[in-house]
Amino acid sequence: MAGRTVTLDNMNPHLITMEYAVRGPIVIRAGEIEKELKAGKKYNFTEVIRANIGDCHAVGQVPLTFFRQVIAACTVPDLMKGDMFPADVKLRAQQILDYCGGKSVGAYSDSAGVEIIRRHVADYISQRDGVEAKYEDVLLSTGASESVRSVLNLLNVHKDGKPSGVMIPIPQYPLYSATLAEYGIHQANYYLDEENDWALSIQELERALSEAKKVCNPRGLVVINPGNPTGSVLTEQNIKQVVEFAHKHKLFLMADEVYQHNIYAEGAAFHSFRKVMHNMGPPYSEMELASFMSASKGYMGECGLRGGYVEVINLDPAVKSVLLKSVSAKLCSSVLGQCAMDCVVNPPKPGEPSYDLFIKEKTAVLNSLKKRAQLVADTFNSFEGFRCNKVAGAMYAFPRFTLPQKAIEEAKAAGQAPDFFYVMQLLENTGVCVVPGSGFGQVPGTYHFRTTILPPLEKLQVMLTHFKDFHQKFMNKYK
Amino acid sequence: MAGRTVTLDNMNPHLITMEYAVRGPIVIRAGEIEKELKAGKKYNFTEVIRANIGDCHAVGQVPLTFFRQVIAACTVPDLMKGDMFPADVKLRAQQILDYCGGKSVGAYSDSAGVEIIRRHVADYISQRDGVEAKYEDVLLSTGASESVRSVLNLLNVHKDGKPSGVMIPIPQYPLYSATLAEYGIHQANYYLDEENDWALSIQELERALSEAKKVCNPRGLVVINPGNPTGSVLTEQNIKQVVEFAHKHKLFLMADEVYQHNIYAEGAAFHSFRKVMHNMGPPYSEMELASFMSASKGYMGECGLRGGYVEVINLDPAVKSVLLKSVSAKLCSSVLGQCAMDCVVNPPKPGEPSYDLFIKEKTAVLNSLKKRAQLVADTFNSFEGFRCNKVAGAMYAFPRFTLPQKAIEEAKAAGQAPDFFYVMQLLENTGVCVVPGSGFGQVPGTYHFRTTILPPLEKLQVMLTHFKDFHQKFMNKYK
Repeated sequence: MAGRTVTLDNMNPHLITMEYAVRGPIVIRAGEIEKELKAGKKYNFTEVIRANIGDCHAVGQVPLTFFRQVIAACTVPDLMKGDMFPADVKLRAQQILDYCGGKSVGAYSDSAGVEIIRRHVADYISQRDGVEAKYEDVLLSTGASESVRSVLNLLNVHKDGKPSGVMIPIPQYPLYSATLAEYGIHQANYYLDEENDWALSIQELERALSEAKKVCNPRGLVVINPGNPTGSVLTEQNIKQVVEFAHKHKLFLMADEVYQHNIYAEGAAFHSFRKVMHNMGPPYSEMELASFMSASKGYMGECGLRGGYVEVINLDPAVKSVLLKSVSAKLCSSVLGQCAMDCVVNPPKPGEPSYDLFIKEKTAVLNSLKKRAQLVADTFNSFEGFRCNKVAGAMYAFPRFTLPQKAIEEAKAAGQAPDFFYVMQLLENTGVCVVPGSGFGQVPGTYHFRTTILPPLEKLQVMLTHFKDFHQKFMNKYK
Repeated sequence: MAGRTVTLDNMNPHLITMEYAVRGPIVIRAGEIEKELKAGKKYNFTEVIRANIGDCHAVGQVPLTFFRQVIAACTVPDLMKGDMFPADVKLRAQQILDYCGGKSVGAYSDSAGVEIIRRHVADYISQRDGVEAKYEDVLLSTGASESVRSVLNLLNVHKDGKPSGVMIPIPQYPLYSATLAEYGIHQANYYLDEENDWALSIQELERALSEAKKVCNPRGLVVINPGNPTGSVLTEQNIKQVVEFAHKHKLFLMADEVYQHNIYAEGAAFHSFRKVMHNMGPPYSEMELASFMSASKGYMGECGLRGGYVEVINLDPAVKSVLLKSVSAKLCSSVLGQCAMDCVVNPPKPGEPSYDLFIKEKTAVLNSLKKRAQLVADTFNSFEGFRCNKVAGAMYAFPRFTLPQKAIEEAKAAGQAPDFFYVMQLLENTGVCVVPGSGFGQVPGTYHFRTTILPPLEKLQVMLTHFKDFHQKFMNKYK
């Protein structure tokens, strides 16, 4: 094997640099432990609890009946013949098939997606915001991730010897850091204000921008709302300030709004950037915006089906043509994933046969998530040295914790970041798999981790009990 | 709208450059005509025949029963309870679900795919080649396209002031030219030998490589077999020569083998690069290779489900880790698309309840494609000034044609390439939509187009009759 053509020395260096912590070394170790448990190896626990990734079904959330019936009917149209599925399921499936080539989900769709599904997305947005949306502005994609990648790609240009820069929150969802690293776009970090429920501070945005200008041409600003990994929900006032900041500095706004259905805190509400910009009037209502949405989150959690979309508004028509062209070589996203997205934006309506069950299932998931959000934050706040903002939305908590000096030193001796060290010990001792804060970014010298709130209530209670025991022992050991 | 942040002047220039002709201006015009026909506008024809894209179901091919039943059962596991689906369908679906997180296709899979499906792919390759394959070498993806993009990305590195270069055939499938343009990798063209059934000439490869070295660091060699758009099938001898060439020049071999089930010509057979390399022994059997496969082609044609994979062998383990990491931020490909791939590599076996119907459906598609392959080549060879190699495999014909000088001049006056001009006239006069050769590349001064052989036999006969009439009139007009 001497003569390998591709080695670390001569391959794309950006791919070597990029990291995606949600599937990083902790998670790889969790997979190993699972295999060892299966093979009979003894641990202090009998199963790994995967709280590392927002993967609802993997930890037991049950899919919505309506979604799955529509997808199955699109797959095997004969299922529409009998009375196995309700009439509204059949109608929905038939409508989608009527817009598919050869009436088959096996035909490629337009690169931007099946037209009727794009229209349903536009209707959903129009209704959500009370402001008309156009289906031509909607591109369906393989989850929201692919759309994020496509839009960031637009901004990737070297000019005057400097790369583009895109401002992202710290902590952030590592899709952003990974994609920016892959593209060679400068990652311009702005810190979220942990003391202020992870709000965006304009002063901090200005600081981050000035800093970034030294090494890049800042072009874009990413906001994640509701927040991943923070679990925060932005106020309308805060969004307005961010829009003004983006306008002042001519930054392309990217709003990651995939958790728009996941709002738990009393008094909190989801405000779309699009609606806020509209309400602000010109010039803000005329600004470009990309807003991302997914079938993987919310109450449906259909991660594996890979449905998602981006709505891009006010884009220069020439740029929009290029965007559409740029996705065309990838042909299209999964048509069944698009069907899942159709169910999200066009769910059963009152009076339709699937409505009652749909509402029952949806409400059960959201109510339970609300309970779990509260439980997780409250429990962590009872731990020595922990401080956890309320989980107002999304599916995560991102508590801050302090570590005894001795633990920090032992971590450093092992060549590990202290939060990585803590989280790895947690995994080895309890089977609980969370992701260290360093994977998302944090103020230097602070330590965090991200946990999902997704394990079912009973399992979550067990997990938090084991966690508490572990933490006490850990503190006793290193104090 | 004065203050747009993204314009053609300040966006990623690679995206402006890239072209994907299979969905280019001819196809956009075809879509417009379809809408005009619906709205009542009169043309010389009543429907557009889309022979521009290998989209089997869109032109009436019927999906395989077994595939769709497995996917529907994975989607709605309750369908496994009754006797609606055969026992082997239920077993297959249950086996896949047992390997999905939470036994749901709504859970993310590993980024490389569901383990049992990767294992089935490895078994399929082992059996096909008589050489053991490892599931760890298999990455499932959104069609084969995503894998092609991921592997090309590895090779993207500037060194000594020059970009990487990847050798691709001319004519080629424009996924390659589009992706290379997007990445800024130099496209190093080698011409296929049209006079010799589109074989690869080593002399031409050497010429192309020398030429490329002036402007890039050549790193990879793409071969498409069976050929798109050429319809050729390479001989084992020719593949050996190519392997020797790649070894001599330390080029990373990428074998696009998505049409491996589509072989029609008497005496032709599919030889995988992997098997040929193995049979050649060291050092060739130790060379790195990426081989791409899809659920979109073959007899199944499940384009919209977006199943595909790459097998990478003999990769440096460190490079393989980076490859796996690089796809992790995209999370995973559609799990239902992966299910489609499972059906391709693990179809019903003799004695299983679905076997007879499966064989009947599969054989019907392949026999019909064989007839159509012959019909298309024979018909074009009867046209004045046409010359069409036999369609030995894949789903396309790529005939060469000559144009009267007057037509060439009129095309130039209209600012169009002559083959584009011809193909646009064809569309406007007959509704037949094919793609000009300039979208795939051709020897300068020659003219071609690509047509699929996919319309059902009757429609194909009508299409060819209209085509013949058009061609005669066109020649009479411009001679």
